[in-house]
Amino acid sequence: MTVGESRDAMPPSRGVMIGAGYFAQFQAEGWNRIPEAQIVAVADALPGKARAFADKYGIPRAYTSAEEALDRERPDFVDIATRPESHLPLVRAAAARGMHVICQKPMAPTWNESVAMVETCEAAGVRLLMHENWRWQPWYREARRLMGQGHCGRVFQISARWRTGDGRGEKPYPNQPYFKEMPLLLVYETLVHLLDTFRFLGGELASVYCLNRRVNPVLAGEDQSLIAVTFRSGVLGLIDGNRISGPMPPPVAMNTLAIEGDAGMVRMTAEGELFVTQYGEPERPHPFPIPREGYKGDSVRATQQHLIESLRRGQPSESDGRDYLKT
Amino acid sequence: MTVGESRDAMPPSRGVMIGAGYFAQFQAEGWNRIPEAQIVAVADALPGKARAFADKYGIPRAYTSAEEALDRERPDFVDIATRPESHLPLVRAAAARGMHVICQKPMAPTWNESVAMVETCEAAGVRLLMHENWRWQPWYREARRLMGQGHCGRVFQISARWRTGDGRGEKPYPNQPYFKEMPLLLVYETLVHLLDTFRFLGGELASVYCLNRRVNPVLAGEDQSLIAVTFRSGVLGLIDGNRISGPMPPPVAMNTLAIEGDAGMVRMTAEGELFVTQYGEPERPHPFPIPREGYKGDSVRATQQHLIESLRRGQPSESDGRDYLKT
Repeated sequence: MTVGESRDAMPPSRGVMIGAGYFAQFQAEGWNRIPEAQIVAVADALPGKARAFADKYGIPRAYTSAEEALDRERPDFVDIATRPESHLPLVRAAAARGMHVICQKPMAPTWNESVAMVETCEAAGVRLLMHENWRWQPWYREARRLMGQGHCGRVFQISARWRTGDGRGEKPYPNQPYFKEMPLLLVYETLVHLLDTFRFLGGELASVYCLNRRVNPVLAGEDQSLIAVTFRSGVLGLIDGNRISGPMPPPVAMNTLAIEGDAGMVRMTAEGELFVTQYGEPERPHPFPIPREGYKGDSVRATQQHLIESLRRGQPSESDGRDYLKT
Repeated sequence: MTVGESRDAMPPSRGVMIGAGYFAQFQAEGWNRIPEAQIVAVADALPGKARAFADKYGIPRAYTSAEEALDRERPDFVDIATRPESHLPLVRAAAARGMHVICQKPMAPTWNESVAMVETCEAAGVRLLMHENWRWQPWYREARRLMGQGHCGRVFQISARWRTGDGRGEKPYPNQPYFKEMPLLLVYETLVHLLDTFRFLGGELASVYCLNRRVNPVLAGEDQSLIAVTFRSGVLGLIDGNRISGPMPPPVAMNTLAIEGDAGMVRMTAEGELFVTQYGEPERPHPFPIPREGYKGDSVRATQQHLIESLRRGQPSESDGRDYLKT
């Protein structure tokens, strides 16, 4: 297959990226390996930033105005990779022009804005798909497959533990220094990945109890959290996170995971390796294929591949905006 | 020093043990290495049980009636090692005779009975000391010492994870088969150790949120629990326990522990080994002396040594009944 040749005999969907920040690089790199999509332009308000980004990733045109980019390019979809407070206005701009939206998580700073994003797109008849890569990391796909095969027996607990050291000191979060100013940080920016992954693994949640604290005093928001959840199935869930006491640089999967059942257990390390136990027998490694290119087991490309296919086929995605409100 | 010669120039305190079950063996063995105490008799309602126990541990006399043992022996203290539902009547029997009480945890099946135990002893002018060995295990003593030296910086979280496999299958808890019938099991019998140890490490608690489930369907009570606590200091605490998914036989310390601060961390394995981290440097083992005799780092003997000294000196213990109500 050559670049530009899609697998479904339709021409590639034309997309415009909004935002050329830290995470956008993974998205642009992912799009470059997805034949069903072609990014025709990138927009970033910071002068020169979109231009350099476009050059780096082979994107034809660069803009400093998102609206101008949308008006001139008339893309099939808009890929929003900006900070959450800008999501609602950008969604409105895209929906008003009849363009589908792929939007980076978290949705928006408030529940009302998140709902407005969903309703704006529904009213305009365009899709809103959330870019949520965590559940697409290959270790979670494999863990769910093992669970579905009955490896654990009846599952009774799903636990995730996030320990990174990227939030320490006077200048925390070197990759994303604006984290420092976010009034809501750990749950909203980080652990939302795990809540969504919990839904992927264990189905819908019934209750959430959350304790938050600020450990690093230079932050506006919280960087320590304990979250005890119940699933509708009765299974218990635990998310225990901070960005102080873990290794720096963080390991590829960031957090560990354990799925415990009455017959066995699946354990994931922060490197994304899986280990399985049948009770009474020693734990053993469970090797499985992990793509080495792209972001975190190529999860960004996998997310985008899934979203663009669901757009082109008109089928529901795993992260449609209305459904993602549950996360 | 020869047996029977105390270290404080007073004659040994004379004690009667009530109960000759599973845990009583550790207590009798511990008393035999404490020169300040002498167990003069043991009582157990099951015919022959006290006799065999007395022979095994060199205890002079055996009884099937606790009251008869107390009336004939007139001991200085009574060491109650029976199941919790019998604690209040036995405490009343001892207090009515002016004898101090050492009583195995948990206190009693209900809050009202626990309070009645405390008030009965206070009214009779005798001491009520709870036998709580967990906090006396040497790894916790050492962890607290490290914390007190400022090793962790400002502590922000204390977490314990209990994973044993002794509660699986049709015949769970081979050492203590009556666990199967207990209407309250994991928190009440097991994790109460950790709540008490949390108080030892982090001071008094401000709030407790608890989710319980029964995993093994043959049980009357619960065997899975998530407990999120806040300390008065603002520190967060987490207890995550089940007796299904861990190793069998269980490792000596049963649970793991982590004390995390803004400068470093102390981590304890389920074998009671300690590891310390200063952030930015690799984790390193922290060797310390662990007594190899007795129960779990000789914690039962250490508990009893502490309790008997506090009785003889008339000083508060770490586990006076009124204070233990907080646990």
